[in-house]
Formats: sequence, structure tokens, C-alpha cells
Amino acid sequence: MTLRVGVLGTGMIGQDHIRRLTQVLSGVDVVAVNDIDRARAATAAPKGAEVFDTPKALINSDKVDAVVICSWGPAHEEQLLDCIAAGKPVFCEKPLVTSEAAARRVIAAEVAHGTRLVQVGFMRRFDADYRRLKKVIDGGSLGAPLMYHSTHRNASVPEGLYTSDMPLNDTLVHDADISRWLLEDEVAAVEVRVPRRNTRGKDLRDPVMVLLHMGSGAIVDVEISVNIAYGYDIRGEVSCENGVAALPNRPAVVVSDQYGIRQAIPEDWRERFIDAYDQEFREWIVAAGQGTATGPSTWDGYAATLVGDAALRAVDSGAREAITMIEKPALYGKAAARAA
Amino acid sequence: MTLRVGVLGTGMIGQDHIRRLTQVLSGVDVVAVNDIDRARAATAAPKGAEVFDTPKALINSDKVDAVVICSWGPAHEEQLLDCIAAGKPVFCEKPLVTSEAAARRVIAAEVAHGTRLVQVGFMRRFDADYRRLKKVIDGGSLGAPLMYHSTHRNASVPEGLYTSDMPLNDTLVHDADISRWLLEDEVAAVEVRVPRRNTRGKDLRDPVMVLLHMGSGAIVDVEISVNIAYGYDIRGEVSCENGVAALPNRPAVVVSDQYGIRQAIPEDWRERFIDAYDQEFREWIVAAGQGTATGPSTWDGYAATLVGDAALRAVDSGAREAITMIEKPALYGKAAARAA
Amino acid sequence: MTLRVGVLGTGMIGQDHIRRLTQVLSGVDVVAVNDIDRARAATAAPKGAEVFDTPKALINSDKVDAVVICSWGPAHEEQLLDCIAAGKPVFCEKPLVTSEAAARRVIAAEVAHGTRLVQVGFMRRFDADYRRLKKVIDGGSLGAPLMYHSTHRNASVPEGLYTSDMPLNDTLVHDADISRWLLEDEVAAVEVRVPRRNTRGKDLRDPVMVLLHMGSGAIVDVEISVNIAYGYDIRGEVSCENGVAALPNRPAVVVSDQYGIRQAIPEDWRERFIDAYDQEFREWIVAAGQGTATGPSTWDGYAATLVGDAALRAVDSGAREAITMIEKPALYGKAAARAA
Amino acid sequence: MTLRVGVLGTGMIGQDHIRRLTQVLSGVDVVAVNDIDRARAATAAPKGAEVFDTPKALINSDKVDAVVICSWGPAHEEQLLDCIAAGKPVFCEKPLVTSEAAARRVIAAEVAHGTRLVQVGFMRRFDADYRRLKKVIDGGSLGAPLMYHSTHRNASVPEGLYTSDMPLNDTLVHDADISRWLLEDEVAAVEVRVPRRNTRGKDLRDPVMVLLHMGSGAIVDVEISVNIAYGYDIRGEVSCENGVAALPNRPAVVVSDQYGIRQAIPEDWRERFIDAYDQEFREWIVAAGQGTATGPSTWDGYAATLVGDAALRAVDSGAREAITMIEKPALYGKAAARAA
Repeated sequence: MTLRVGVLGTGMIGQDHIRRLTQVLSGVDVVAVNDIDRARAATAAPKGAEVFDTPKALINSDKVDAVVICSWGPAHEEQLLDCIAAGKPVFCEKPLVTSEAAARRVIAAEVAHGTRLVQVGFMRRFDADYRRLKKVIDGGSLGAPLMYHSTHRNASVPEGLYTSDMPLNDTLVHDADISRWLLEDEVAAVEVRVPRRNTRGKDLRDPVMVLLHMGSGAIVDVEISVNIAYGYDIRGEVSCENGVAALPNRPAVVVSDQYGIRQAIPEDWRERFIDAYDQEFREWIVAAGQGTATGPSTWDGYAATLVGDAALRAVDSGAREAITMIEKPALYGKAAARAA
Repeated sequence: MTLRVGVLGTGMIGQDHIRRLTQVLSGVDVVAVNDIDRARAATAAPKGAEVFDTPKALINSDKVDAVVICSWGPAHEEQLLDCIAAGKPVFCEKPLVTSEAAARRVIAAEVAHGTRLVQVGFMRRFDADYRRLKKVIDGGSLGAPLMYHSTHRNASVPEGLYTSDMPLNDTLVHDADISRWLLEDEVAAVEVRVPRRNTRGKDLRDPVMVLLHMGSGAIVDVEISVNIAYGYDIRGEVSCENGVAALPNRPAVVVSDQYGIRQAIPEDWRERFIDAYDQEFREWIVAAGQGTATGPSTWDGYAATLVGDAALRAVDSGAREAITMIEKPALYGKAAARAA
Repeated sequence: MTLRVGVLGTGMIGQDHIRRLTQVLSGVDVVAVNDIDRARAATAAPKGAEVFDTPKALINSDKVDAVVICSWGPAHEEQLLDCIAAGKPVFCEKPLVTSEAAARRVIAAEVAHGTRLVQVGFMRRFDADYRRLKKVIDGGSLGAPLMYHSTHRNASVPEGLYTSDMPLNDTLVHDADISRWLLEDEVAAVEVRVPRRNTRGKDLRDPVMVLLHMGSGAIVDVEISVNIAYGYDIRGEVSCENGVAALPNRPAVVVSDQYGIRQAIPEDWRERFIDAYDQEFREWIVAAGQGTATGPSTWDGYAATLVGDAALRAVDSGAREAITMIEKPALYGKAAARAA
Repeated sequence: MTLRVGVLGTGMIGQDHIRRLTQVLSGVDVVAVNDIDRARAATAAPKGAEVFDTPKALINSDKVDAVVICSWGPAHEEQLLDCIAAGKPVFCEKPLVTSEAAARRVIAAEVAHGTRLVQVGFMRRFDADYRRLKKVIDGGSLGAPLMYHSTHRNASVPEGLYTSDMPLNDTLVHDADISRWLLEDEVAAVEVRVPRRNTRGKDLRDPVMVLLHMGSGAIVDVEISVNIAYGYDIRGEVSCENGVAALPNRPAVVVSDQYGIRQAIPEDWRERFIDAYDQEFREWIVAAGQGTATGPSTWDGYAATLVGDAALRAVDSGAREAITMIEKPALYGKAAARAA
């Protein structure tokens, strides 16, 4: 049985997901598209797909079994609520929504619906390296995780478009989500420290160092560098009670030449996480085919929103900014397991 | 458009390919199966697939666009010739055939047909690490390849079933094929040396060291160890005029614990090459959908047969056993490019 | 010409330095020893060495060209001042002294003397790996250093003897000193964060995370884990404007066996820094032979004292504790060069 | 007590050893030098050392406790025999001598003397990496060694001075000696294969591949590449019954920049083995101080001579050239232990 999918938003990421759904993955068809730019939607639509005038029309169409949201952030809340109202599984690119209040409204709607419908686009959880890392931590042989060192380096960001807030409310969400997932824990408070700036970034606040204080007491320190020139370098190391586990280097030819013994580094997130994106949708297709969702949830999107907000407060205050979450609905599983 | 595939042979590898074609890959359906054990075929058949009484009936059925051969080696020649007669694209697991004469007959048939129809199951060529390695060599910055060190280690082989000839006429074909492909060269002669035996293998001739003398003069030395206990470890290093390129370690969590700083090693070929198998069929599906074949060809299967035969002669003679190939039909591309 | 050395303090570290000076290094003789435990001194004394009744007598003896201080910390100030009064070069194990006031008094005396006489025992500066790391940073191709990640892990510490203050006023000094040296910068302020505790350490405050805010704005984050079981693991990574430089793994056999592909980790600081200790004394012998000192200075010992004090304040206050230094005497070189 | 050493031959290597003995190591003085070029000897002589007119006069001088031979190979036999006649310990740079007959004469003289006096300059045995590798093999947990892969790469060799025989009778001796030592085995036969030539070496036979058939049946394959441009790269991997042990990369800063994640490679043997040379002499000084010798022996020099001779025969014949050794005198320890 083939899952009939409608895609909202046909910009760069929407087009990439359409390619993935139609050319890479099995058991799925893209049957409907919508974009505020109707011409762009028409161009992006695969053969046979219908171009809808409005997101709501697409969501409610009988042709559409499940929805992929790739529109811009401020549009997400309404689209998510419409999907939930229609009882349709939905994949939503990050950010889930753009405010804590909106996140709570989506949670309330999904809880009222009674089963999970939403999967949020935190693709790192589907990366084979991160999954193996989690398996080692979960295995327990290293003892409890006490610190997690997360490194998030981009070769460059678009000058002018990427602002000083974005390391904290955009880039950081990946580190925050993967920390929550790896450690099975919530972020209780956030601190931000700003080192000497990278002169390559002009006026940009870059790098930043973020401390996430987890519910269990574990501390996550994050280096976010967005103009480091040499490549897209994602590292993670969990320091536990009696051992340490870390992401490996990416597989690349080991060349010995005049530059030394060396391995290439990915250029950007597309290269680094291409397999994770595919796997993310593979699992979504299976769950959506059963009328539900697995993987990163509305709750996770809510948590990410809170961390981003707290990080922005923290960079202004210089202080430790606490995060207060609503009680976790049973729909999203038990509360963080590793909390002391 | 969906490629309708018939599978000949539903043993272990046939079942795995049926799983791959039906559950992992897109654009393909398994519509027909056949096995000498009809009950086994019926069990392995996906829902809606027809169980055929004979390979020939399956091959000639209008339902079937393309064929996957997973039967035992001695049956391959006839099945391949029937596919070519029917003008149907065919994926054939190794070995292509079991004698040089048979290989020549399949070549003759395919050449007479005029376009390529056969892809042989040398999956290493589809492995991302090997592909990146070839790209570096082809890039030319390291100069001409002069030596290739290939290491082929199995944790264990089934006692009694795996004989002393098999390192040379079964295991070696992967190293021989990947050497030919990486170096874009043919094997001109083979030598075999037998070191002190591994006592874990009882009467088995293990390990063996094989020297492949390539047409260009490059030398490939292969270590084949099939009872080395610690894992399935495939390595390859190309020594060139002004630098060296090698396969990386497999990506695995970097654990620091009482056993040191360490990374896991794959247990077997399934774990090591699972992505390569998927990719192998992705590319086959595309080509078969166009009525042809790409990737490892009948010519490559013929070459592998010759190397295996020469290796068996060489282990007996202790001498350098030359390989004489027929002239390469234009269908299979130009003769080895790197030959001096 | 052979340097005639007197050793003050013949406990474990004193004995090890006597071994080093008499059996490993050239151009040096141990001619005099002293210890509060005279019997221990007599036992530790190499053949022909005189056992002195008091440190002062040893320091002022005509037999003694230069002094090595391995006594306990509270005795250092008086011994250092006596050495300076005698105009004799002196190697002083860490800590230089045990209070800021004492450090200033030693500085004042040495400045009054007019040339450097004191080398402090920060052996990491003599480690080949750290030296190569500094050379890369100094080379400038990576741009300015913005963050430094320092990891300091001990397999275990003696229960009962090692207190919760010691990660901050004892262990941390090595990370602080190497940060100042690598970055050519002073520590301007210190923060301490305490993660979830390692249950293996019982009541010990372990691990701790320390942030050193450098004068240039660079931030150093230090993980100190003193009960991590798996080994003595010292890591360091400098994140710069357009690249990153890190200490390598220690050289160790690459074993592939049932535990994976792996390399052993040093058991303790003796194994890790044995060559650095030797080199530290090699350079001291050369300088002392010329009546002076190079390497880590009284100023560096003073800075380390300030960092330890600030770290203890910071763990209590939870706040950023600033460090105020006296003006740097010209004797100790120019002020930190990389400060913005 | 200081060992008084006389140095024969004050060319490049002689000068380097004089520097080592006088500036790096302890317990030793260079009191005498000799060279066929008396002016060069005078220049190289450390302060206070006497320049002797003849090797024999130096060897027999009462001033001289032990001798270091750095003269050219053809002079070694006479100098060694004179040292043995004088009962003086002697360190002899490779080659021990230049013919099998000469090697036997030195063995006969030393055996007649009754105790070991000669240490041959195979410095790899003193390298920390090789020693750790041997310790792992000797530990036995990996089972018996079956194959050893030795890689010997030079960035370049002096054009015109370095001839096509030298990879086999000069460069190879290090791989042969280290193979014998690691595997505790003798070389029973040698084969040489010549791959496609490196065009950077013009008329030079480079690279070569050498197979050493050890007495136990273990096979050693050696890649010797002497014009590979990128650096001096010495690798070694022992393939055993149930695991593998290999030399690590050299410790070097891990740099992440536009060229990838990379570590520098040594430029030449001086950089790679500088510590091994120091250690080689440390151990020699201790043994010579006791009037004897340890480490690589006259027997090892004899074996190296045989391997070089066999390799030259093998490259001409293309065949397996057997090595026949005289019975091993008890003076040189038991016969190879690992032979089956």
C-alpha cells in the first residue's frame, strides 16, 4: 500500500523532500503540493500531483493520507492544527512552531486527539552514528552519563541573512534535541558564554558556548562556530562514570600525501546527514501508514522552543535561565528517565 | 513505472534480495519466483507473486521485466542464456558461471544481442568507501597506482563446508574484481604463497597470500584469512607514485574504557556491505528499467573466473600462472586504460 | 662541566627526580639531599651525596650549584627565598607556594635579584605533543584561538586523601598553566559548574567543569574527572577562526581483536608524561648551568595560585570570579601577547 | 663511572653519534676519534678528545673503553676484529660487514673470545612503537604470527648515488632485521617482485616487493618505495591466528583545516627514529660499561647480510632464493623460537 503524501511549502527543503519521497524511498507517492508561490508549487509538483490553492484544502483532501510541512515557521501552527483536526499524520520540519504558547496549543490538540500524529524534523536522531552512540550509552557499561560535549561547526553562514540570534534559536536546537535524546533527560536551565569573536564573521556573535543543565544534573557544553571555514564538523562525546563514548570521524578515504595522513570533512549538513534524512522519512512513512507518528514528537518541538527562548534570555542576562515545562502528557511517554 | 522482477533461487541470498526488493527499494516489485524446491519458493514468494515451475517459464513470462539469479552456480549459464534470448535484463549473483568456456558462451550471446543485459553481483563496487577510494585514484593527484594491498579477513567459515580451494576460487574473486576496477586494469598473472597455517582452521589452507600481476605492471598482494576470529575486516591501500590512499575504518562509536580507545569491527559481510547491496540493486533497477545493464559485466565475471582458475593452478604449481583473455568485445568498453 | 645539584625533599617525587638526575640525564650530579625525615634522606641519597641537616645549609653549601625543591608546599616559600638570596638556580615542584601573598614575595625577591632563578614544575610545557600543538597555533595558519577544550581525566584518586577542593586547587593548575602558555594569555576570570556526581567517587565533588575566561576573550572549558576508571586521559583541542588543532592519541599498538580496533590508554601521569619530565630537567640543567632559569617562571606559579584561589571562590559563589594580577615585571617577559 | 668512547669515522652519521654521546646521553665521554680524513676528524672531535692516526691505534689505546664504528662498510671487518682482539665492546653501524665470509670471520672471532662484544646498529629494535608491538605479539593473546606486512617508504633518495640494488641490499636490512626480531624467527628464503616503476625515480628499480619466507612458515611481505614524495612512512602489521597488531601513526597534532582532518608524517628517518637512536646508545652504554654487548648481535648482522645477498639473487632469478645459515653459536642465544 502506497502512502499518498501532500507537501506544504516547495522551497529548497520542500523540493529536496519531494525528490527523496519520489526518487529514493519506497511505499510513498507525492500526490499534492501547495506553496504561497503557486508557480513554484507547480514547478516542484511531481508528475500527476495536484497543486492545491490552500494548505487547508490540501490537508483535507481525500487524496492525501499524510502531510509534510516545509513552509516557513510562522505558518506551522495553523497547518499542524488542521492536520490534527483532520486526523492525518504529519511530518513537520523544524521549528515546530515559533512560540511556547503555540507549541502548547499543538500539544493540547494532539493530546485531545488521543494518538500521536506529529513527527518533527530532528534528523540527527536517525543518523547511524548517533544511534550507535545512544546504544552504547543505553547499554549501561559506561555508567551514567555526566557530561556531554557537543560541537557544532559550520564552514560558513550566509552573510546578512544569518543573524547573531540564530546560533541560539536555530542552530542550537539540534544540539539541544540530541542531548535530550541521548541522555533521556530534559533541559532544566541554559547558560550562554560568548568567547572572543571570529573576525571572519564580521559583526556576528560567533562562536558561542552554551551550557545546558539537564534535569539529572548532567551538564552539556556546546561549541557553536558558524564561520570556521574548514568544513561542517559535528562531534559529540559523552563522558560517563567509568568511560567515554564519542562519534567517530566520518568515513572518508585515508590519504597520505604532502598534506599528511588525512581524511576529508563534510562540506555541509546535506553531505553529513543525507542518509539520516532518508532514514527519517523511511520511519515516518511506516508510522504514517499506520495512521500515527513515532520519532521526535510535538513534545520535543516544544522543548526545543523553550531551549531557544532560554538561550536568548541567557545571552542577554549572562545568567542561568531556568526552563519550566508543563507536565508531560502521557501521550509523549514517561518523563525523562535518567533524572536523578 | 515499476520494474516487475522474477527471482530464480530462493535460498538465503535469494530471500535476502526479495526482502531488499520489496521492503527497502522503490520502483520495483517481485512478481515471480522459482526454486528447485517449490515449497521453499512458495514460502519466499511475496504476496501476489507467482511461483513458476521452471526458470525458463519465469524468464519468458510476460509478467516479468527483469530477472534476478540467485540459484546455485552450475545453473547460471542456462538461465543467463535464456534471459539474453528473451532480451531481459538480469542480475546474476556470483559466480557468473563455473567455467571459462561457459563464460565465453555467455559473452558471445550477449555480444550477439548487441546491448548489455547482465549485471554480476560484485557488490564492493557499490560500497561508498571503495567508490571514494577510486575517485581519489582517478583524480590523479597521487600519480599512477603501483601496488595495491588488499586484506580480506573473515572471522570464521563453516567447518567442513568451506574447503581449501575456496579462498582462491570463491573469496578471492572480490579482491580480484575490486583490483581490476580500482586500477582499471586486467590481471595478467597470479601467484599464490601459503604461510604457516592458522591452527584454528584445522586442515584448512588458511591464510593464503595471493599476488596479482596486473597488465600495467602494478602488483596486488592479497591476504586472505578466513578464521581470524576477531571480525570481518576488509582493508585496501593503494600505493601510488607520490602518495597513498586507503579505505577508512568503518564508522563505529569511539569508546574509551578498560579495553582502550576502540571502535567495533563488523561481524560479517552482511553488516559490512549492507548498504552496498542496496545500492547495487538501486542502480540495477534504473538500468533494467531501461532494458539494459550497467556495473559489473559479463566480462568482469569472465575475468573473475579466469583469476580463480589461475589461482588454483598457482597454488599447485608454486609458479606464476599467466592469464590469457580473449579480445575484449567493444560492448564491454575499452581495454584496461591504465595498462602501460 | 657537571651541574652539582642538591635535592630538598626525598619523598616519592623527590626520589623519582633523583633517579632521573642520576640515571637518565647527563651533565648533572646529585651531591646533596635534605628531608625532614633524615633517615629517608639518607636512604634516597645517591652514593657520595651529602645529607644536610637543614634546607638552608644545603642551599648555601659551596658544593651545591643548583637546587631542586620537592618538599611539601608550605615549605617552598622559605626555600625559594633562600635560593634566591644565595643566587642559586632552583627547580621548584608545584605548587610554587600556597598563597598569593607568598607568591608576590618570591616575585619581589627574584625581581630584586635581577635575573630569573626559578623554574616551576609545569611539565606539560615540555611534552612533545603540547609543543607541537603550540607550534601549530603559533604558526597562525588557523587564525586566532577562540576556544580551548581541555580534558583532564584520572582513572582514580586516593580515597580520603583527595578532597573535593583538589580538582580545583591542585588538578586544575595544569590545565590553567597549559591554557595560558598555549594561548599566550592570562586568565581573567573563573567559573565552576558541578555536574551530576560520579557515584564511584562517593562524597567527592567529581567531575567538575571549569570555564577560564582569558584576557583576549577566548574561553577555555575544562572537564576534570578524577574517578573515570578507564585510564589517564589528557586531551586538548584549540578551536580557532578557521580551523582546529588537537592533541593526538598517545602512540600505542593498534590491536584488532575481539574488543575491536583499539589502542591502550596510559594508566597514570607517570606513564603519560615520563618523557616530559625528562625534558623538563634537560632544559633546566642547561639554564641552571648558566646561572639562570627558563621555562615556567615564578610568574606562572603566581598565576596558577590565583586561578586555584578563584576556582575555589567560584565553586562556592556559583559566579564569575575575576582575577586581578599585579603588573607583570619585565623580568617575566611582555604581557600576554594575544590579548585583544 | 663514565664510559670512554672512541669513534671511528666522523662523517655525517659519526658526527651525529658524537653529538648524541656528548650532548644527549649520560655516563659517556667521547675521548678519541679517527677518520681517513684527519682534518675532518679534528673538526668533529669534542673538546679534549684525541685524534688518532689509525683505527688500530685508537682501538688499542688505554684511554678507550669502547668503540663506535661509523666508518664505511668495507673497513668494518678489520676494525671489528681489532676490537675483539682488544676485548673492547664495540657498536658497529650497519652494515656489519660486506660479505658473508667476513661476517663468519667476525662471528668466529667473537665466539673464540667467549662473550659478546659487538652491537649492530639496527635502531628499530629500540623504537618504542616496535617494542610495544613485540610485547603484544609475545603476550600471545593473538596467537601465532602468520603474516607480517612491512611498509618502508622514503620520500626520496639521492639521484645517482642510490642505485637499484640498494632497496635490496641496504634499505631492506631494516625490514629483515625487524621481522626476525618481531617474529623470533630466521629468514629461510627470499623472493622479489618488481611492480610498475615509479616515474619519479627515472631509471631506478622502485618500488620493489619482497617476500621473506620465515623458518616457521610465516610470510613477510615488504613494500619498499624510495621515491614516494609524501614522507618517510614506516608501517608494520602482524596478522596472527586470532587478531592483528600494528604500529600506530606517529604522534602529531590533529589539525582540522581545509585539507581535512590530518596528521603530519615524518620527513625522514632522523625525525622518525631520533628517540630510537638515543635509546640504542643508552643500552649500549650500559652493556659496554660491563664489558659486553646486548641488542642486535653479530649474528643479526650476519643474517642481514645473507638476506641482502639472497634478495639480489632473487631479483635476478625471479625465483625463491634459499638462505643457508651456519649453526647458531650458543653465544647468540637459542635458535629461532617460533619456528614450527
